[in-house]
Amino acid sequence: MAVKYELIKECKQSGARLGRLHTPHGTIETPIFMPVGTQATVKTMTPEELKEINAQIILSNTYHLYLRPGHELVEKAGGLHKFMNWNKPILTDSGGFQVFSLGDLRKISEEGVEFRSHIDGSKHFISPEKAIEIENALGADIIMAFDECAPYPADREYVKNSLERTTRWAKRCKEAHRNPDTQALFGIIQGGMYKDLREQSVAEITALDFPGYAVGGLSVGEPKPLMYEVLDYTTPLMPKDKARYLMGVGSPDCLIEGAIRGIDMFDCVLPTRIARNGTAMTSVGKVVIKNAKYTEDFGPLDPNCDCYTCRNYSRAYLRHLYKAGEILSGRLVSYHNLYFLLNLMKDVREAIKADCLLDFRKEFFERYGYDL
Amino acid sequence: MAVKYELIKECKQSGARLGRLHTPHGTIETPIFMPVGTQATVKTMTPEELKEINAQIILSNTYHLYLRPGHELVEKAGGLHKFMNWNKPILTDSGGFQVFSLGDLRKISEEGVEFRSHIDGSKHFISPEKAIEIENALGADIIMAFDECAPYPADREYVKNSLERTTRWAKRCKEAHRNPDTQALFGIIQGGMYKDLREQSVAEITALDFPGYAVGGLSVGEPKPLMYEVLDYTTPLMPKDKARYLMGVGSPDCLIEGAIRGIDMFDCVLPTRIARNGTAMTSVGKVVIKNAKYTEDFGPLDPNCDCYTCRNYSRAYLRHLYKAGEILSGRLVSYHNLYFLLNLMKDVREAIKADCLLDFRKEFFERYGYDL
Ligand SMILES: [Zn+2]
Ligand SMILES: [Zn+2]
Repeated sequence: MAVKYELIKECKQSGARLGRLHTPHGTIETPIFMPVGTQATVKTMTPEELKEINAQIILSNTYHLYLRPGHELVEKAGGLHKFMNWNKPILTDSGGFQVFSLGDLRKISEEGVEFRSHIDGSKHFISPEKAIEIENALGADIIMAFDECAPYPADREYVKNSLERTTRWAKRCKEAHRNPDTQALFGIIQGGMYKDLREQSVAEITALDFPGYAVGGLSVGEPKPLMYEVLDYTTPLMPKDKARYLMGVGSPDCLIEGAIRGIDMFDCVLPTRIARNGTAMTSVGKVVIKNAKYTEDFGPLDPNCDCYTCRNYSRAYLRHLYKAGEILSGRLVSYHNLYFLLNLMKDVREAIKADCLLDFRKEFFERYGYDL
Repeated sequence: MAVKYELIKECKQSGARLGRLHTPHGTIETPIFMPVGTQATVKTMTPEELKEINAQIILSNTYHLYLRPGHELVEKAGGLHKFMNWNKPILTDSGGFQVFSLGDLRKISEEGVEFRSHIDGSKHFISPEKAIEIENALGADIIMAFDECAPYPADREYVKNSLERTTRWAKRCKEAHRNPDTQALFGIIQGGMYKDLREQSVAEITALDFPGYAVGGLSVGEPKPLMYEVLDYTTPLMPKDKARYLMGVGSPDCLIEGAIRGIDMFDCVLPTRIARNGTAMTSVGKVVIKNAKYTEDFGPLDPNCDCYTCRNYSRAYLRHLYKAGEILSGRLVSYHNLYFLLNLMKDVREAIKADCLLDFRKEFFERYGYDL
């Protein structure tokens, strides 16, 4: 089997899981945050910098790579690892989420989804079989099943149909998967914000015995307490001996709350996206670097951070770079934001080890002071 | 004195100079190319990367820093070195060239130049005294006199008036300079494409005894052979014991031709500007990475380069990054282009040491095959 999850211990205080995920490109300590490299690059960063800040695994997007440069090209280059110069684990999503987000540009049928490219309007069709064909060509360590992610809000009937189709598609994905020994196919649990539908989805998807499972259909616009509630009744139903991945979540509060609810893996574009807009996540809360109050602030971006950016540059300089439209601005703040989240997950792992994740959460929020 | 030039030897074949420039922030091996960090950052690069590729000195622009973030702010930050995290030598231009390039937005008088900011249209006045005040606040190791750079073409009368004003302004700059022990003020020779005016300017400016001299008013649109001709009759008149800086020149052919004519220092935005447009300078000529012929080219950007970019990425990947609008594209190609020019200057220094710079030029152009 390509990927094996090893549960090391559960936090006595919170129930959070400390674990290891063994993959063909190395072992990942969990819980972990995965930086997103949508187009085969984590925006502004080199792979070496990602290693410097201890990124253990990155995510890339099947939809984007399928359209540009094309999965055949990536396969000819020797696969995604070689193409982008990253020799550690990679996870690819299935493209489902992006395709469904296209709205008017797509048409769903039992067979798959017809859609138009957001780049040039060209027509395409992705089925579960096609998604797996693309993901096999890309060659990531972990690949995701092609699912249908219901929007929020959505009525019960819609969500039920969508989760049942997701189950049928999951079966087709499993049958289409050519490389089970080198690529682990994870199933995705849907069911929206309905407890009985989540229960149904967990039962159907875990019956297919995937090497790992994601909770999909969250972080789609619902209030955070509702997401936590869904996790509260969903994760206890999931197998303990497989990794659990909460898709599209990357704010500090949600990472901690997710870990407390038994999640092992997270991903989100948030840290790099807000960085390019000049916003930093810091131990003392959000810093919007363009604000005038930082004009003569010669202190570091985060007084409690020892990352490259915080060791070498002042808020005044970062503000200047941002105002001047300099690329180094996005680079330095992206570096810090990713370091901040990866370090946060390291702290979370330490707190699980010490059975005090609830105490850690309390202290963190007292310093952080708000939800980003 | 802040800066001292040491002539080590002259190439027996070409007359090119091998030297050392001693500055408060370290010694520079010459001839050298200086990467340009217009807004207190060499676009896309960190200072550590510049050191990695052996950049010995960088240039920054007084006009831009005066407008944003302001020289007082940089001074409060502890000077430009500290502000931008670069502890090696820096040279600042005087802002003259940028101000004169504003065209309709500026008005020249004997006192100085009134102009409107290209950022917000606000009105400003820079005199020789003001330029030096700004450069003193920025704190670069080498600062340039405020000169008037005549356009090309320009009639004799215009150029004569402009060079004579440049001399009067050079005197005022020297008198205004507050830090001669820590910042070396270089004079600038003007005179356009007129031999007798160049002779007049060299005589007047060198009579003021600056610690170094620049040849200004070249690379302003004239044909390259004309620039070489001006250098041919200008540099022999310049003192041998002072550094010679050819402003705004950065194409490989001009660097070699300039060194052959006794120039020690060069600067240009060319390598980083074309990099962001997806164009690389390579040992086998120009590579325009977006071209379709590189779609499946899995070889390095430059087959004869051992820089970070060429060791780790393919032309196909660089093309993908460029087409996808990814910031890493500009980063990786800028890194290579600067490495290429800095390495070229190292080869030039070796060739001077071995008295074979003319042979080197021949071999280089046989491989390179064109003028960029
Ligand atoms: Zn930091
Ligand atoms: Zn290279």
